[in-house]
Amino acid sequence: MTKVILLVLLVLVAVCSTLGKPEKNIPKRGKRIPQTLSRGWGDQLIWAQTYEEALYWSRWRNKPLLVIFHLEDCPHSAVMKKAFAEDKEVQKILDEDFIVLNLMYETTDKHLSPDGQYVPRFLFVDPSMTVRADITGRYSNRMYAYEPADMKILLESMAKAKKLLKTEL
Amino acid sequence: MTKVILLVLLVLVAVCSTLGKPEKNIPKRGKRIPQTLSRGWGDQLIWAQTYEEALYWSRWRNKPLLVIFHLEDCPHSAVMKKAFAEDKEVQKILDEDFIVLNLMYETTDKHLSPDGQYVPRFLFVDPSMTVRADITGRYSNRMYAYEPADMKILLESMAKAKKLLKTEL
Repeated sequence: MTKVILLVLLVLVAVCSTLGKPEKNIPKRGKRIPQTLSRGWGDQLIWAQTYEEALYWSRWRNKPLLVIFHLEDCPHSAVMKKAFAEDKEVQKILDEDFIVLNLMYETTDKHLSPDGQYVPRFLFVDPSMTVRADITGRYSNRMYAYEPADMKILLESMAKAKKLLKTEL
Repeated sequence: MTKVILLVLLVLVAVCSTLGKPEKNIPKRGKRIPQTLSRGWGDQLIWAQTYEEALYWSRWRNKPLLVIFHLEDCPHSAVMKKAFAEDKEVQKILDEDFIVLNLMYETTDKHLSPDGQYVPRFLFVDPSMTVRADITGRYSNRMYAYEPADMKILLESMAKAKKLLKTEL
């Protein structure tokens, strides 16, 4: 008797939990993994979605903005993304002192491509909304590019972006 | 003896697996759940990140674009988001025939706020990059608002957005 009651209860629970979950649309080619805003550049950072949003937060919180332009199928972007996401110091400073945005499409603001639209490309923007074209990496032909071996130079650039904020505002 | 060998092996495996994973930065207030681009409006849809990206895909794939403006802490957005994400028909049609974008910040394009910047707000854009201000819901004071009870009206608006694309291009 107890077994029968238990069985009925189990069936009820099963039916209820099925009823509770609405049937969702599954794409023809199978279930997809939800896209993240970080796109692999640091899951623990709070990423802005758009340039407008990033500028808003930069002004509001008085923090410099780092914009990263990249592409999913670019090997240079891929290796830099890995080094960037795994660099604890870079991630910590960005988390505490910067607004971050990563974009796979160019914006309409030409100031974000001072020497062309290559990827990966790292641009700093001051809370006053000025693109810091003076903060560059070590390549004269792609001034805003950084490679995995350049993490120290990136940290120096980040320090420059932070310094100006304090002295000029 | 066998036990000792096993123990040494276990320790080695533990050390190796620790070495394999680089130490990542964990924010002071604890680990965060990575943000998704869907933000709860349908995890199985492929969301554009920015308005520029959405317009690009709309033109390229000759599909109308749906832009949803919403806010995380708005109760009207929350109930509409739930109804929207759980509506199998809406999700299926959007997945197959539309480009989708959800934004928590306004863009610089004033055409996307024909009667103000309230949320939630649903705007359709033609692949010719024309904002379809003629496709509205049923509220005269907030013409681009839809509520959970209006899913049929939203489906009709989606049908309108699809129809024009075929007849005008």
